[in-house]
Amino acid sequence: MYLDSFKKVVRNYRAVFFDAFGVLKNASGILPQVQETFTYLQENNIAFYVLTNDASRSPLQLADFYQSKGINDITADKIISSGMLARDYLRHKVKDGRVAYLGTKDSAVYLEALELMTIPISKLDLNHRKMDEIRALVLLDDEGFDWQLDLNKTINLLRRTNVPVVVANTDKTYPVSENQVAAAIGSIADLLEWIVGKTFIRFGKPDAQMFHFAFEHIKQENDYQKDDVLMVGDTLHTDILGGNKFGIDTVLVLSGNTIPDQAEFYIKTTGIIPDFICESITT
Amino acid sequence: MYLDSFKKVVRNYRAVFFDAFGVLKNASGILPQVQETFTYLQENNIAFYVLTNDASRSPLQLADFYQSKGINDITADKIISSGMLARDYLRHKVKDGRVAYLGTKDSAVYLEALELMTIPISKLDLNHRKMDEIRALVLLDDEGFDWQLDLNKTINLLRRTNVPVVVANTDKTYPVSENQVAAAIGSIADLLEWIVGKTFIRFGKPDAQMFHFAFEHIKQENDYQKDDVLMVGDTLHTDILGGNKFGIDTVLVLSGNTIPDQAEFYIKTTGIIPDFICESITT
Amino acid sequence: MYLDSFKKVVRNYRAVFFDAFGVLKNASGILPQVQETFTYLQENNIAFYVLTNDASRSPLQLADFYQSKGINDITADKIISSGMLARDYLRHKVKDGRVAYLGTKDSAVYLEALELMTIPISKLDLNHRKMDEIRALVLLDDEGFDWQLDLNKTINLLRRTNVPVVVANTDKTYPVSENQVAAAIGSIADLLEWIVGKTFIRFGKPDAQMFHFAFEHIKQENDYQKDDVLMVGDTLHTDILGGNKFGIDTVLVLSGNTIPDQAEFYIKTTGIIPDFICESITT
Amino acid sequence: MYLDSFKKVVRNYRAVFFDAFGVLKNASGILPQVQETFTYLQENNIAFYVLTNDASRSPLQLADFYQSKGINDITADKIISSGMLARDYLRHKVKDGRVAYLGTKDSAVYLEALELMTIPISKLDLNHRKMDEIRALVLLDDEGFDWQLDLNKTINLLRRTNVPVVVANTDKTYPVSENQVAAAIGSIADLLEWIVGKTFIRFGKPDAQMFHFAFEHIKQENDYQKDDVLMVGDTLHTDILGGNKFGIDTVLVLSGNTIPDQAEFYIKTTGIIPDFICESITT
Repeated sequence: MYLDSFKKVVRNYRAVFFDAFGVLKNASGILPQVQETFTYLQENNIAFYVLTNDASRSPLQLADFYQSKGINDITADKIISSGMLARDYLRHKVKDGRVAYLGTKDSAVYLEALELMTIPISKLDLNHRKMDEIRALVLLDDEGFDWQLDLNKTINLLRRTNVPVVVANTDKTYPVSENQVAAAIGSIADLLEWIVGKTFIRFGKPDAQMFHFAFEHIKQENDYQKDDVLMVGDTLHTDILGGNKFGIDTVLVLSGNTIPDQAEFYIKTTGIIPDFICESITT
Repeated sequence: MYLDSFKKVVRNYRAVFFDAFGVLKNASGILPQVQETFTYLQENNIAFYVLTNDASRSPLQLADFYQSKGINDITADKIISSGMLARDYLRHKVKDGRVAYLGTKDSAVYLEALELMTIPISKLDLNHRKMDEIRALVLLDDEGFDWQLDLNKTINLLRRTNVPVVVANTDKTYPVSENQVAAAIGSIADLLEWIVGKTFIRFGKPDAQMFHFAFEHIKQENDYQKDDVLMVGDTLHTDILGGNKFGIDTVLVLSGNTIPDQAEFYIKTTGIIPDFICESITT
Repeated sequence: MYLDSFKKVVRNYRAVFFDAFGVLKNASGILPQVQETFTYLQENNIAFYVLTNDASRSPLQLADFYQSKGINDITADKIISSGMLARDYLRHKVKDGRVAYLGTKDSAVYLEALELMTIPISKLDLNHRKMDEIRALVLLDDEGFDWQLDLNKTINLLRRTNVPVVVANTDKTYPVSENQVAAAIGSIADLLEWIVGKTFIRFGKPDAQMFHFAFEHIKQENDYQKDDVLMVGDTLHTDILGGNKFGIDTVLVLSGNTIPDQAEFYIKTTGIIPDFICESITT
Repeated sequence: MYLDSFKKVVRNYRAVFFDAFGVLKNASGILPQVQETFTYLQENNIAFYVLTNDASRSPLQLADFYQSKGINDITADKIISSGMLARDYLRHKVKDGRVAYLGTKDSAVYLEALELMTIPISKLDLNHRKMDEIRALVLLDDEGFDWQLDLNKTINLLRRTNVPVVVANTDKTYPVSENQVAAAIGSIADLLEWIVGKTFIRFGKPDAQMFHFAFEHIKQENDYQKDDVLMVGDTLHTDILGGNKFGIDTVLVLSGNTIPDQAEFYIKTTGIIPDFICESITT
């Protein structure tokens, strides 16, 4: 398996999409020397954006984290999260009424700015007459509710009421410490979908809509073509599959989910083939 | 859709396997006139057994419920639950060490009588040296633990330790009141299996092992052939599919999961075809 | 279930995306009075396009069919097929070498204009040294090859060689006569993917990329917003799900796959909810 | 990974179930020194049986192959194939009429001895009045029919007629030469099931019914307990999973599907854990 130098690869592009977890940060904080790579990008006039399936916080809050760690180049306008697509869906398809959600207060920020009333599942009374006002259910985050109580309540809500269900994060798990993961809302969505038998609307990598949204976003700043853009991620099934399908070049980095020993094996068995493999974005 | 009289149908058999929920009882209690049918069976010398995917209680406790409602014919020895198969598996395949479980204390009764130490997931310390003694994980019931805390703990347990995972109930949901259901441990097993990517060992209808176990059980009392036995259930995907595959005749009753209006449609679309359809077991 | 008049609904939009099968045509030919609806659209200055998962023929050949039936308004530039997305993928991601394909000569037209050599699987010699030149496999159509011979050959090709596999039509089946269907290449792709365990790249409704491609296409002609566009289709899982997710309004017509008797039931059980339901596009 | 000596392991059992492909034979013929192991088993009074998902030939024909290669100990009565379970199902559940099948003439031998008329799908006329006499469809073998013509015919048969579909071999693929595999009827069943949306009845490892059938079979000869029996196979998902679940001890051999380099990895990622691992049955 040939490893490329990331800095050498990236020079051939005008813009980079970075995945966050496993590329820029991990459960312990920012990966070493990330700032140096951002400096390199700016010296070489290469724009960059963060594409994340994390809908637990707003771009503003996500950017705060980077800035508190001294990475000042990542401002809110550089962050494109799957929560923004969920909001975009609601803006176009749900014009009035109430939106129920599973998630924290922080994640519910994605539902603000819309002219919709919101209600967490925990506060919903299935027998109240206002149930009729529910127009959509949005799954935002795995925190902020009682799993047993509120997931069973959600199952019964979906058995009675036929509303679109929007999933703002398609990930299975996310790291909570060096050795531990937690189930993400994407997995919880799988459980609910399987039980109620309905088809949910999912936003987030590898879905093409995430890449289109990001591409539209950056084209407002500059006239980019697909061949100008490089997707960088640590996960074959989201970052690399999605980038490939969208038609942009892809780099797999070995600083996160995909460990060096197994990269070659997983590329071969999944058939998801990155254009380049780099140890990390600091090489 | 032609509806048969259950009493007319059952006269051609020497033994009956009844599903419990939707056939003998529902969330409100015992279905009307069930005792009368049992009297009829005894008058006609037809043996009967209850085959249930309910591993939340022991056969003894399950029988207590029926007796408290005046159905004295259902004694513990008439009840065959998927929990008994899980116990049987452990007896043959796990000879020493500790068995971790998800479920209530009541459900853990299936792990007693084995010469194994048991520990609920909630009490497990993933960093303790005794982790090495864990030889199997058993999923018994959806109650008795903190879903968020203990399911995430289970995910991390299965990422570190390679032990067989046994699921003692394959159902998706179960009724908790006339209009409400709750996710069963079978669904929770799906979530965990999907996240950790391992293959669990599942016991319960429609799996053939459940029917074999019951058939072996009743053959100890009498010399039955498959053609002597009738399976009666309200669910196509468990009771009817399992009974058909095992090679015994099957009756779908319309007193539970499968509502009269949709029975014909579901039989046609699933291709799971009962030999008879009866309104209930009291017809 | 309330049925809207299509002509009344469509007046509120500036552009319409039509699915082909079940909306404009069926196995017997063009549906009655379709031309009249097109005339109505033109009188009202509403643009229209055909969005089809049919990659068996080029837009030019597909348009020829409509014109031969007297529907002169459907010209090649009005047709957007999933085959065009497969071509677009290859243009961006496969720069040289050879592309193997399953499909007819007609379907292979999507691979022309690219600077790539093409070879049908039937002509491929798995033991020839030129195998190394294969850079991608494209599944275009269910016709044009020997299923047993060439599908087994494809399985062995994918076991030895790791190349991206592109599926240009995600449909399960298509109608071949009033009462008969045939397996589409989308189903055959499922079989191959399942056997070799790799992840294929699929283009076609309900995938968002199809809608983005179409939307970009029409924006070159006029400055449309999402709220200006209406998707019209006969299939919940492709046309309606895809349109909803993309953020445009959707009409389910009952002239094809979804029959009037079952529409309400399927909308309820799938949770895929069209904004409008019309008997056909001629109402 | 610790490798046991097969001969040392097997001495603790009174009967052995062998998988065929990858254990006793491969695409090139009988594996070396297999006869010697059989001699060893007989010297030690250990009974043995072959448990195979191969329903392409009768036990008699399968035994002929071994005998033609000088392995005289494998007689027809030692072979238990999934085809025998399909026959058993039909015997109990289909009492009259006609059974349609996909497979060769050789495989159709499993349908003989039943008092049922049989007809290959290729000879079926979907428009003939005798269609009403079809009582079941049996999928026996991937050979003996035109895939495109007859699979499409089968799809249309199952859309019109609601009969049980029995699959006599659940394997995905089988080896046809040292480097080549072919899709088995189990995969073709997946394709059909997926397209028509019905639930088929599948026989073969890892399903418990196969092991029960074999266990019943050998108990007619001798009074075996589960702890007396050892399952030996080369495939985790069929031989080992099935044996474990049935409650007997299992040996994974590395002479077939599971190659030595990857055994440990696959055991860890699948969670399917054999009791022993041996290089082959000749060690």
